[in-house]
Amino acid sequence: MNVAIIGVGLIGGSMAIALREKGIAKKIIGVDENEAHKLKAIEMGLVDEIHNLETAIQKSDLIILAVPVNISEKLIVSILDKVEKQIVMDVGSTKNAICAAASKSKNRKRFVATHPMWGTEFSGPEAAVTGAFENKAVVICNKEESDTDAVLLVEKVYGSFGMHLLFMDATAHDLHAAYISHISHITSFALANTVLEKEREEDAIFELSSGGFESTVRLAKSNPDMWVPIFKQNRENVLDVLNEHITQLRKFKSCLEKENYDYLQELIENANKIKRILK
Amino acid sequence: MNVAIIGVGLIGGSMAIALREKGIAKKIIGVDENEAHKLKAIEMGLVDEIHNLETAIQKSDLIILAVPVNISEKLIVSILDKVEKQIVMDVGSTKNAICAAASKSKNRKRFVATHPMWGTEFSGPEAAVTGAFENKAVVICNKEESDTDAVLLVEKVYGSFGMHLLFMDATAHDLHAAYISHISHITSFALANTVLEKEREEDAIFELSSGGFESTVRLAKSNPDMWVPIFKQNRENVLDVLNEHITQLRKFKSCLEKENYDYLQELIENANKIKRILK
Repeated sequence: MNVAIIGVGLIGGSMAIALREKGIAKKIIGVDENEAHKLKAIEMGLVDEIHNLETAIQKSDLIILAVPVNISEKLIVSILDKVEKQIVMDVGSTKNAICAAASKSKNRKRFVATHPMWGTEFSGPEAAVTGAFENKAVVICNKEESDTDAVLLVEKVYGSFGMHLLFMDATAHDLHAAYISHISHITSFALANTVLEKEREEDAIFELSSGGFESTVRLAKSNPDMWVPIFKQNRENVLDVLNEHITQLRKFKSCLEKENYDYLQELIENANKIKRILK
Repeated sequence: MNVAIIGVGLIGGSMAIALREKGIAKKIIGVDENEAHKLKAIEMGLVDEIHNLETAIQKSDLIILAVPVNISEKLIVSILDKVEKQIVMDVGSTKNAICAAASKSKNRKRFVATHPMWGTEFSGPEAAVTGAFENKAVVICNKEESDTDAVLLVEKVYGSFGMHLLFMDATAHDLHAAYISHISHITSFALANTVLEKEREEDAIFELSSGGFESTVRLAKSNPDMWVPIFKQNRENVLDVLNEHITQLRKFKSCLEKENYDYLQELIENANKIKRILK
């Protein structure tokens, strides 16, 4: 099978590695707007050939959209309108907008909306990782809107990566993603800005920073070109969760202001219940 | 050298392992209020003997206080008043309160205030880890208030663990700790409470949760008996940082409400500057 990857960055590059490793792709064709990324993707052996979008579609059986969600939303109709038997899938962090856009094409059924639950704070082809998707979850949305053969192929691809499949409608996905992923990124960006704003002794941060700080602030290194479109597309859910998060933080603030340490203890004991959900 | 460890939990237990591994301690004596922890510490071979506080002090050359910071504050004077040549050190996350308390003893100079910058969200002797402190920072506070031989021994102990030493006054330490460690914990507790409050489909969280969520919420499993006293002792610094953090989160909220995506991009680009500080 020939696979076209539109956007050979963190996710696209990691998928290229997995597709080759698992023997799914015979040939991988890269498409990217960024000249440096194109060269790097060839140099790293992530892709075999670089073509423009049109040629890549013609030469491929499977087309993977791995660009920021606003670009996917913009490209999906024109890509779908050009396919015949090919299958198109995306890998973005929001699913409502892409599904709504795809519905405008006569070939909607050749599209499968997916979200592999993996990422790092890095970007570009150099950020691509071997074994990225193993044992992670992947969500497939609105599968009833896709052809059966298209869903089966996508399931086979993700199955070969060692991922476990979840099926959800796009609206439910976007709500859950706001909790599981989007709010963590906002918290992390805001925490980085807090430290940068208030802590003038950067050497002290650098020398003292321990595991706790690094794991909470790590996500603040994430690429705005990827994240602004996600927050924009999932605006209502993210705002809803963010409002609740600010309310929860205010409870901690109020405990400290009023020196109500019994309630502080209660808040933390309640937070500990997350053990029930996370391993 | 005989070493007494008061509080054989996550930190005390991990220090016991390191002290033995590095050949620093000939005999390790454990002191703990918790019956189950005593038995476990013996069973795991973390300590050789269990004694009460008084006997442990008499039998030891070095006494390590590894209990919640409010207990350390309460015990430090009576411990110091009982020592002759012995050296006492603590390992707590706040340093002003313990230093102020220690100053009330005639033997203040036998005490060294320290904070090894390592921890996990787990607690109890079972949480003890081999190699915990390697390549981490440790802060020694107000060293001019301690005898030279006491500081030298503590430096030797932490040096043998492979830690790099930083010297700071207790007030500066508590300010930095609010940024580097305490605020991350509050954010994480509040994020866990946000998810627990709003997200009713716990199965979805469990199945979807990916690296980003887990690394941000991990700290929310931390023990309230350890953390409430830290927030209490470092109340003013923590409140100050928490207020700034809420202000920063409100900026994200305002961007989304007003759909000002240019400013959102700016906020994230600013947060990315944390790359300069963290590797």
